[in-house]
Amino acid sequence: MKTLVKLDLDKKPWEQDGQIHNRWHPDLPMIAMVKPGDEFRVECMDWTGGQIGNNDSANDIRDVDLQQVHYLSGPIGVEGAEPGDLMVVDILDVGTFEDSQWGFNALFSRENGGGFLTDHFPEARKSIWDFSGIYASSRHVPNVKFAGIMHPGLIGCLPSREMLDEWNKREADLIATDPERVPALALPPNAQSAVMGRLKGDEASKAAQEGARTVPPREHGGNCDIKDLTKGSKIYFPVYVKDGGLSMGDLHFSQGDGEITFCGAIEMAGYLDIKVSLIKGGVKKYGIKNPLFKNSPLTPTYNDFLMFEGISVDEQGKQHYLDVHVAYRQACLNAIEYLKKFGYTGEQALSILGTAPVQGHISGVVDIPNACATLWIPTDIFDFDINPSVDGPLQLVTPGSDLSKAS
Amino acid sequence: MKTLVKLDLDKKPWEQDGQIHNRWHPDLPMIAMVKPGDEFRVECMDWTGGQIGNNDSANDIRDVDLQQVHYLSGPIGVEGAEPGDLMVVDILDVGTFEDSQWGFNALFSRENGGGFLTDHFPEARKSIWDFSGIYASSRHVPNVKFAGIMHPGLIGCLPSREMLDEWNKREADLIATDPERVPALALPPNAQSAVMGRLKGDEASKAAQEGARTVPPREHGGNCDIKDLTKGSKIYFPVYVKDGGLSMGDLHFSQGDGEITFCGAIEMAGYLDIKVSLIKGGVKKYGIKNPLFKNSPLTPTYNDFLMFEGISVDEQGKQHYLDVHVAYRQACLNAIEYLKKFGYTGEQALSILGTAPVQGHISGVVDIPNACATLWIPTDIFDFDINPSVDGPLQLVTPGSDLSKAS
Amino acid sequence: MKTLVKLDLDKKPWEQDGQIHNRWHPDLPMIAMVKPGDEFRVECMDWTGGQIGNNDSANDIRDVDLQQVHYLSGPIGVEGAEPGDLMVVDILDVGTFEDSQWGFNALFSRENGGGFLTDHFPEARKSIWDFSGIYASSRHVPNVKFAGIMHPGLIGCLPSREMLDEWNKREADLIATDPERVPALALPPNAQSAVMGRLKGDEASKAAQEGARTVPPREHGGNCDIKDLTKGSKIYFPVYVKDGGLSMGDLHFSQGDGEITFCGAIEMAGYLDIKVSLIKGGVKKYGIKNPLFKNSPLTPTYNDFLMFEGISVDEQGKQHYLDVHVAYRQACLNAIEYLKKFGYTGEQALSILGTAPVQGHISGVVDIPNACATLWIPTDIFDFDINPSVDGPLQLVTPGSDLSKAS
Amino acid sequence: MKTLVKLDLDKKPWEQDGQIHNRWHPDLPMIAMVKPGDEFRVECMDWTGGQIGNNDSANDIRDVDLQQVHYLSGPIGVEGAEPGDLMVVDILDVGTFEDSQWGFNALFSRENGGGFLTDHFPEARKSIWDFSGIYASSRHVPNVKFAGIMHPGLIGCLPSREMLDEWNKREADLIATDPERVPALALPPNAQSAVMGRLKGDEASKAAQEGARTVPPREHGGNCDIKDLTKGSKIYFPVYVKDGGLSMGDLHFSQGDGEITFCGAIEMAGYLDIKVSLIKGGVKKYGIKNPLFKNSPLTPTYNDFLMFEGISVDEQGKQHYLDVHVAYRQACLNAIEYLKKFGYTGEQALSILGTAPVQGHISGVVDIPNACATLWIPTDIFDFDINPSVDGPLQLVTPGSDLSKAS
Repeated sequence: MKTLVKLDLDKKPWEQDGQIHNRWHPDLPMIAMVKPGDEFRVECMDWTGGQIGNNDSANDIRDVDLQQVHYLSGPIGVEGAEPGDLMVVDILDVGTFEDSQWGFNALFSRENGGGFLTDHFPEARKSIWDFSGIYASSRHVPNVKFAGIMHPGLIGCLPSREMLDEWNKREADLIATDPERVPALALPPNAQSAVMGRLKGDEASKAAQEGARTVPPREHGGNCDIKDLTKGSKIYFPVYVKDGGLSMGDLHFSQGDGEITFCGAIEMAGYLDIKVSLIKGGVKKYGIKNPLFKNSPLTPTYNDFLMFEGISVDEQGKQHYLDVHVAYRQACLNAIEYLKKFGYTGEQALSILGTAPVQGHISGVVDIPNACATLWIPTDIFDFDINPSVDGPLQLVTPGSDLSKAS
Repeated sequence: MKTLVKLDLDKKPWEQDGQIHNRWHPDLPMIAMVKPGDEFRVECMDWTGGQIGNNDSANDIRDVDLQQVHYLSGPIGVEGAEPGDLMVVDILDVGTFEDSQWGFNALFSRENGGGFLTDHFPEARKSIWDFSGIYASSRHVPNVKFAGIMHPGLIGCLPSREMLDEWNKREADLIATDPERVPALALPPNAQSAVMGRLKGDEASKAAQEGARTVPPREHGGNCDIKDLTKGSKIYFPVYVKDGGLSMGDLHFSQGDGEITFCGAIEMAGYLDIKVSLIKGGVKKYGIKNPLFKNSPLTPTYNDFLMFEGISVDEQGKQHYLDVHVAYRQACLNAIEYLKKFGYTGEQALSILGTAPVQGHISGVVDIPNACATLWIPTDIFDFDINPSVDGPLQLVTPGSDLSKAS
Repeated sequence: MKTLVKLDLDKKPWEQDGQIHNRWHPDLPMIAMVKPGDEFRVECMDWTGGQIGNNDSANDIRDVDLQQVHYLSGPIGVEGAEPGDLMVVDILDVGTFEDSQWGFNALFSRENGGGFLTDHFPEARKSIWDFSGIYASSRHVPNVKFAGIMHPGLIGCLPSREMLDEWNKREADLIATDPERVPALALPPNAQSAVMGRLKGDEASKAAQEGARTVPPREHGGNCDIKDLTKGSKIYFPVYVKDGGLSMGDLHFSQGDGEITFCGAIEMAGYLDIKVSLIKGGVKKYGIKNPLFKNSPLTPTYNDFLMFEGISVDEQGKQHYLDVHVAYRQACLNAIEYLKKFGYTGEQALSILGTAPVQGHISGVVDIPNACATLWIPTDIFDFDINPSVDGPLQLVTPGSDLSKAS
Repeated sequence: MKTLVKLDLDKKPWEQDGQIHNRWHPDLPMIAMVKPGDEFRVECMDWTGGQIGNNDSANDIRDVDLQQVHYLSGPIGVEGAEPGDLMVVDILDVGTFEDSQWGFNALFSRENGGGFLTDHFPEARKSIWDFSGIYASSRHVPNVKFAGIMHPGLIGCLPSREMLDEWNKREADLIATDPERVPALALPPNAQSAVMGRLKGDEASKAAQEGARTVPPREHGGNCDIKDLTKGSKIYFPVYVKDGGLSMGDLHFSQGDGEITFCGAIEMAGYLDIKVSLIKGGVKKYGIKNPLFKNSPLTPTYNDFLMFEGISVDEQGKQHYLDVHVAYRQACLNAIEYLKKFGYTGEQALSILGTAPVQGHISGVVDIPNACATLWIPTDIFDFDINPSVDGPLQLVTPGSDLSKAS
């Protein structure tokens, strides 16, 4: 396996020979060209570019510069790729660096990013997860260990000019409905901290001012944070520009459906081994708008679940109309309340939901007015029996630990 | 296994000796008492109480009286159950009646119920599904066959007076925000077509006027339509009234996550074999608000999926804020478009999403402004290769069939 | 589903209108004809034809008449089936009779059949297993419950005259090597207790004297006791005589790989729903000698196993050459010894291995001189933690029960 | 993860600073000591120590020196380990070397090792398998690709003097029954090519003359070739000598149950990440004779199988008594015959059975006189439809390739 993108983790993202960018723009030059059928390795920094440390303070999380993110490796061109093609990407492997056997999970503070449950957990918190081969465990979250389902949180092809304009337009329209909101409704282009790969000078400045931020998933894939895109999976990406321009990053050792802590999975540096090929004209042939995925035959087989339900009645008892977001929030809150009965803090419980291979299912979306969502927690990841019993819960969690706080 | 609730399917729901009701109300008398540890059989009508026929016309779907639904068997009391307990329900088996080896799936017309994709599919449509042991297939949807994951769409305990009042209050508040909407935002209590079990006279009339409709899932469970509550699963229900009062119905031979066609699964008459027990004081002990579930060790093992993605940008290109409902709708529309390329009509494709064991995952809910949902279709349910290929899709669906229409 | 073979369980096997036979012979008349594509139900007695009772004595096991077995329903003819075809049999469903929710498992006495571990467990023993929907449990074997994987132990087509002769010849040759052995090496044709279906008079007598016993699996399938032929599976049987002549019986609610207790699974009466079709000339086209199977998509998903190993060194320390039989016996003995540490009797442990969905793997057959076999026990079937721990095993099995003995 | 055993793959096994041995003997000095709870990496050569090349000739297979094998890394001591303890080994990871992304599978010639089907395939043959992340494929066996289930073929603790004597005695007794047999019944101690780790001088010579060969699995584990001991699994090994002395090697990228080609899996160099701990006195506490295993939660989820059956009637039609070895051989031969119908050569088909994650089940061992074994081939590893159909098999295998031969 040839290493196509080789990084130096001791350097900053902008010192990596132009191999990294953190905005989406059609003019980004390809940093390498490959042929259909090629297999190659791409190294990636963690999504923050090294801002977060393996320590017991959440100061770095509190102070993280979210303008910088996400640092992506690429874009990589595929010979013969043209708009309208499907770029077929086999994720052959996802790996960690031998001297970097750890990752982080965090809750952003409400003032700096927030997250799914930011009303309940408004302060910065951090947990460090250690890797032992296929397993992850944390000194900040005891009594739980699970097989990782390593995947790229972010991967996709460069947008065309038209698509970029559409993204910027629709997101600006949304922001305009409540421009002062904290957290913000969306993140507009922002040249501050932009890293534009191998674009130079004025071209780089201009592109930085209009380049789409990498936070949301969009038609090209991007930051879809689908935990199931693990080693062995396959993706069919729409191609929008000549050569395609595939970029990737934001590697996760493990994540639960929804990535609900926002910083959100077990975030890590690492590498992807991928193979690319093309289906010419595939976008039209198959009626593709968003990427299409195939799951991997090699995924954790945990199959005994506690399933928590939520409906679209919010924490204040207000009825929402078929709102799956509200329903899933309730399911998560229900799970957190349950886990606390065994001795976890709320933050620890939330961290488990964000990092472990929990599933979030859209169980019902038609039974007016309540959407119904379920959160599935694999019971085998705990080293004690997490099931209900006649005797009630015992305080089985080893006391004395918690997520790190900011000082 | 003792048959606790025995029905005569040739009779109407209101002719079943008071064993059926279709509203939730704390005053409904128990139709039978059991002891903790008891195992017993409960027969159930299909949710419409027999309004839909095994034929090739959707007239019955177009004209269905939705005031009648859902017809539930119960309530069944458990000796010793008190408010605050958890009623543990083991679903030991779900079965069909030997002389009723079929079910129906339908799209309601926009004017009578609508559904998740009613803007795209506004007319009444029906497909009939035949059962062959564990498998279902349909003369209206060719080239697809799957193992059913039989389950009750609707099951739960009677609400207390306080809970009922809360339900009615919050749903009325929602309706008041747009009372003329078609389809309605929610369904208020309505004495028309109410069947109140063994309540008599004035008590029945009064309860009918305030009894909660059975359509939405609520804190007690109810119409949660969770496909995974199949034979072998276990549920922990909160108890709100003395004796608990467990009712159930709306049996499904199979259903996809979301039940997106609204009428919505493969609907059928059948029976449940269940076992009940109690965790005294379990609601507080475990911090339970909504029911808690355990999945079954016996479920279809389909594990090769095509995964369609949707983000919260709607069909008109408008950006929504982390709206999973919009995202899942896009994922479904993407899947329908894909399936059409192989020769299915849109209605057939939709019917597959509603009936087959497809999964709907909440993949990302934090990457502002886009929620990301994925729809997973098992590839092995088709009798042809549904995967993308370099050659593009072949028209492999046997031509000449479609869902039934109303005349 | 049409019931093609309807039995009266209150009558003897030979009083069932000729629908039952217990010997394999090419001259057995078809009891019914079906067309390719037909789906139908076949009722079956338990393999002993009702000799064993739901009680707490093993006298019936000790005294069972093994000349009678196995009682099979059939043969059923398929129109157009000819020698050299493959008969495709879809096992659509396997079910129990509503008023017969129990089965038995037993150890035969050494003098009457014996079994895999008869040197260690030479006496007759019996356990009764009660069915609760998909689950089985036993008053004779506490603290264990599992989802059944219902299947026919015995199914296949009638042999041709040539094949019958070959069977009788080769088995007679084996018997001749040690004709007095107890238990016997094989069971020769024996007219005593033979039930020859609808053959009459001299024809019946002659066929009884040469008909093959049903005990062993042979080229046509027969008593293969493959637990995975459960509802949803598919079998391709070689056809040897005109119309095929499919017979079946020996239904099991559950069984472990190897059926090591001999009487051997959870034995029961019940029914099979099957569909038949043909691949004309399929035997040659696909080079088929023994039947070919496809597993079901609906099987228990237990996936956390304790795996016991055995090698081909026997209980006396003698080295055998790549003998998987010896190796598997050691793996079973190792598992029994382990389970005893938690409080089970040896007989109870053996009964678990015979009835639960344990897997027996041929792990190594080339590393001279030791074969290596592994026995996989699903840990989730126990209601306590069966894994090793630093503290050593606790006596967690409820005391006071054991398998029934003969008086 | 600390690398405890670091090798130089460009050097010979006996040039690795005494870290490698190829005989079992109690006097082998520990090459390193670890504490209970430690996690560390152990590098391993391929089992032949580099005798086989990535090329298209089977000369190296024909001429391989089997006296040399297997080259093991270790023994590693665990502080506090004493005879009678259980050494708990977590296999945290199994990996390949970045610059060695290939492995080999081979048939030994009858004159030099032979194998399970040596009567049918008596000549030396070789296939090379290339690794692409989690997948393996071969230029010598087209149209098949599968996720590897990487594992050590050989791992275990040093025997005590008493155990070594017992091994040598019982194997010598077996050899004495047919000392001239080709292939041999067992392999006696042989000082030729023995590598004795850090033993020196006379001690080394003496130990070489009595050290047990590494070929068979024995009570301590050893060459058990259980494919399921993959990353994420756990093993409980009996300890026989002070400090335990854990050695390991013979890494496989993938293997089918039985390792039927003898050289037998996809053989490779690589590393193991393991964690060790102790259960003091565990051998007696749990009644352990052979090692006990727990499977991994991360294994290929292939679940659609073609299942081939074999019974204990051999290729000449001779009836054997409950001989699982004969039965499994028939199942394998049946599978090979089937695969040939699609265009594979017999050798290619055999290679698939040896390398892919096929399962070998002991399905019946009591139905005298026939044992019944089944071989399960996952259908999803082929890039064409391998199932039977009405039309018969198409020649779908790309023509023009075969295993390498010796010149």
